[in-house]
Amino acid sequence: MNEFVKYRRSIRKYSKKDVSHNFLNDLLETSFKAPTTGGMQLYSVVITRSEKMKERLSPAHYNQPMVTQAPVVLTFCADFRRFTQWCKLRNATPGYNNLMSFANAAIDTLLVAQTFSLLAEEAGLGTCYLGTTTYNPQMIIDILELPQLVFPVTTITVGYPDVVPPQVDRLPFESLIHDEFYHEYSNDDINMIYEFKESLSENIKYMESNQKGTLAQVFTDIRYTKKDNVVMSENLIRVLRKQGFISVE
Amino acid sequence: MNEFVKYRRSIRKYSKKDVSHNFLNDLLETSFKAPTTGGMQLYSVVITRSEKMKERLSPAHYNQPMVTQAPVVLTFCADFRRFTQWCKLRNATPGYNNLMSFANAAIDTLLVAQTFSLLAEEAGLGTCYLGTTTYNPQMIIDILELPQLVFPVTTITVGYPDVVPPQVDRLPFESLIHDEFYHEYSNDDINMIYEFKESLSENIKYMESNQKGTLAQVFTDIRYTKKDNVVMSENLIRVLRKQGFISVE
Repeated sequence: MNEFVKYRRSIRKYSKKDVSHNFLNDLLETSFKAPTTGGMQLYSVVITRSEKMKERLSPAHYNQPMVTQAPVVLTFCADFRRFTQWCKLRNATPGYNNLMSFANAAIDTLLVAQTFSLLAEEAGLGTCYLGTTTYNPQMIIDILELPQLVFPVTTITVGYPDVVPPQVDRLPFESLIHDEFYHEYSNDDINMIYEFKESLSENIKYMESNQKGTLAQVFTDIRYTKKDNVVMSENLIRVLRKQGFISVE
Repeated sequence: MNEFVKYRRSIRKYSKKDVSHNFLNDLLETSFKAPTTGGMQLYSVVITRSEKMKERLSPAHYNQPMVTQAPVVLTFCADFRRFTQWCKLRNATPGYNNLMSFANAAIDTLLVAQTFSLLAEEAGLGTCYLGTTTYNPQMIIDILELPQLVFPVTTITVGYPDVVPPQVDRLPFESLIHDEFYHEYSNDDINMIYEFKESLSENIKYMESNQKGTLAQVFTDIRYTKKDNVVMSENLIRVLRKQGFISVE
């Protein structure tokens, strides 16, 4: 596994070959062995295969082509509903309509998602995460009919790889670990850490085609802007409240 | 990998054998190949090996014995600080002091943590997640000296297994997946889903020793109470704000 993870990459273009139900279910069932808070398994996975549903989901993901092109789209949801229903049926008073419970469920959900993704990749499938899931959660909630105490945390598109892209760069290992304490970065550290990324020809082109003076400006001015983040943060809080994860008491 | 994940279990008792620096670093470096939002790698890992630091961290984790017993304790932190510093040095205006950015960073962090955990388990190590990380984040922030825009999301203890416990139960596979839409659970569904868990002798003992009428009441009244969740939710929001992830503007 170590060797294949070292050379992994996300796959955004899939062949027409379908992913069989048995194969997918086996991978998902194994992924449900991931660690889970108190053995509660606070997640649900919605499996999208129908063309119509993919078309509906597509705008929620800013029309990224993977959504309609992949044979399978998996929406991994934090789910405290099932557990809450069980409590109510067993004369127990659930107290999971709050942010702490959402955090527990979201962590469970992401551990399952990444376990699935690695299992799928090792089995020869290609996967791609859609970060857009939390940018536009209400659309996804409406389309997948997610009830109270269920929230879409991430989405993975799944299929057989068509185009395998080159592996993307990573920051130097030493810059991501801290021995015993967090060590603040000096300006020299930052220069060294981002030097390789800034030197890549695709990033230089990216900067030039966007008429920006630095690669960082491509991120702050175009890809991940303050304006978008502020709007999406308010949105996130509103939808978390609507789904019952921020208590109004 | 599929076969080993099927039979995996969390390890809470470790042998005295140390985990070598090279071995740990190789596993961590490979885990940093996990998918990451926009290639930003919004995480840092603080590595705790010193006895003194483990003793200090222990109360933040409710004195769970794994913290002082494991040779290595890894605190996986959402980190938008490094990226923000880079932006500032490159004449770019960062806008990452908000909840959306925290969500992006927390997702990145958890994908890396689970990739590490699976790699470590496959390589013969035992790991255990500490959900307590988000229950008591301020203590961890103080001990590890985490600055603004850095937040501890989860902790994994690492060592060679001493006691390998039996595998824990999982809910029926079909109860965790939803075909195209979220399907609400009927009372019969819920009874069926939790039947096996409720029948386990350790859970019956657990219920009896806590003098509870149902297993669900052990969760709601003792393990994950509404009172604790409410306090911890307020705490979580307060500490997220303090670390700069909820904008005060």
